[in-house]
Amino acid sequence: MKVTYQGETGAYSEMAVYKFFGNKAEPVPCKDFHDVFESVKTGAVLNGVIPIENSIEGSVNQNYDLFLNYDLKVCGEVAVKLAHVLIANPQTIFEDIKTIHSHPQALGQCRNYLEKHTWALHPEYDTAGSVKMIKEKQLSNAAAIASEKAADLYNMKIVARDIADNPSNYTRFLVLSHNDADPTGDDKTSIIFSAKHAPGTLYNVLGEFASRNINLTRIESRPTKTTPWQYNFYIDFEGHKTEKRCIETMQALEKYAVFIKIIGSYSRVI
Amino acid sequence: MKVTYQGETGAYSEMAVYKFFGNKAEPVPCKDFHDVFESVKTGAVLNGVIPIENSIEGSVNQNYDLFLNYDLKVCGEVAVKLAHVLIANPQTIFEDIKTIHSHPQALGQCRNYLEKHTWALHPEYDTAGSVKMIKEKQLSNAAAIASEKAADLYNMKIVARDIADNPSNYTRFLVLSHNDADPTGDDKTSIIFSAKHAPGTLYNVLGEFASRNINLTRIESRPTKTTPWQYNFYIDFEGHKTEKRCIETMQALEKYAVFIKIIGSYSRVI
Repeated sequence: MKVTYQGETGAYSEMAVYKFFGNKAEPVPCKDFHDVFESVKTGAVLNGVIPIENSIEGSVNQNYDLFLNYDLKVCGEVAVKLAHVLIANPQTIFEDIKTIHSHPQALGQCRNYLEKHTWALHPEYDTAGSVKMIKEKQLSNAAAIASEKAADLYNMKIVARDIADNPSNYTRFLVLSHNDADPTGDDKTSIIFSAKHAPGTLYNVLGEFASRNINLTRIESRPTKTTPWQYNFYIDFEGHKTEKRCIETMQALEKYAVFIKIIGSYSRVI
Repeated sequence: MKVTYQGETGAYSEMAVYKFFGNKAEPVPCKDFHDVFESVKTGAVLNGVIPIENSIEGSVNQNYDLFLNYDLKVCGEVAVKLAHVLIANPQTIFEDIKTIHSHPQALGQCRNYLEKHTWALHPEYDTAGSVKMIKEKQLSNAAAIASEKAADLYNMKIVARDIADNPSNYTRFLVLSHNDADPTGDDKTSIIFSAKHAPGTLYNVLGEFASRNINLTRIESRPTKTTPWQYNFYIDFEGHKTEKRCIETMQALEKYAVFIKIIGSYSRVI
């Protein structure tokens, strides 16, 4: 069962694939998030897994934006605990490290630790990919930030542990598909909402949820990109889109909306 | 009159300094946003200018987060139109370009153009800094994305213009100080709000603004970083904190808040 994810073998996204699909999964690495959406769209794979939000660094904006361009559904969510370690080639001496390579979010999550040293930070496209790169280039003055699993996979040395500013560091991933999931009784629905430009619209929108006792679990805004300082709202709320209270809410929102796009109902994890 | 900004001479942040303070400004470049906050805090400079939001790529998360750690005020805002060009050393031939260097937001803003080529993208800490770097290293297979002004300043060649996906590309900057600004009659106030964890809290908070006819111009959420999937809200609204309706709203919010921090009232531009 093929599932695409962004990054290299050993990436946190790959862990998310296994956590959601179990050992029947056959993770397929790809270069960027756009490729994940594209390969699900074309049917090259049935599912893809993308990070949407980290508990320290916040939203993965590019993935929020890609939901506007693709008519794909979210059929599940999964959270993975991130435990960063500092990884180097086996012959590297800690004192010789000059440059640190990792995904910008991982560099951000270890900011306090990194600031205690005079290392140059190099943002890369992936955590595990950074380990692979310093191995392939046999860099002896470099280290990468990634998971312990990535260190093992590439037979590299862990030179420091517990380097994240905050040990409570989770990334929430969404599972992409052509169809969303059937109701389980404990579900969540994600929508994109473009509000008509009028005072108090967001307040009125939230009122439609509140009056039906529907809790919101997340609200995020992203630029429309067409008009500066205008935003689309991404709202996650409790309930499945087939529930009566959710159907009524979606109907009630239409009077405040330029458009509403339901991107999926799925079993709630968080 | 010294004003700090992040980046190198020719950076868009430097343009924001001149646009807000005029020719009396003496812009002082520094390495990162943390340094901008720190130099205003210590009194090394009276003001700093930081980007807070781009009309395409969205919020500059690190600066939102820094407001939590510093007791500085916002005393003004200014928007700068970004017009990216592709810049190379004078001897570089377009067909020889292999790598593109720029700030990740600028790379993101030119995604469609960049995807038409097979260039490797190198995220750097600053747009103008990328121009400086490819000049100093005399890279003949590299180009940088920055402003036309940066090309002029470093005597470099413009090899492509109009490369941004969207010509309507603006960054909004905030001016930092130890004091916010006096009322002008057309003001804005920015607050950070940590909501008590109860259903409908955000709805009730927005209701306090709506019932007093106070328009919100921006609402953004950022992770608290202490508890996963809990958020602080950053709200910008019309009015000066010394206005009666604003004082009453802030008082009314206290019953929903773990904390409220007013980070400034200032003359409204956007």
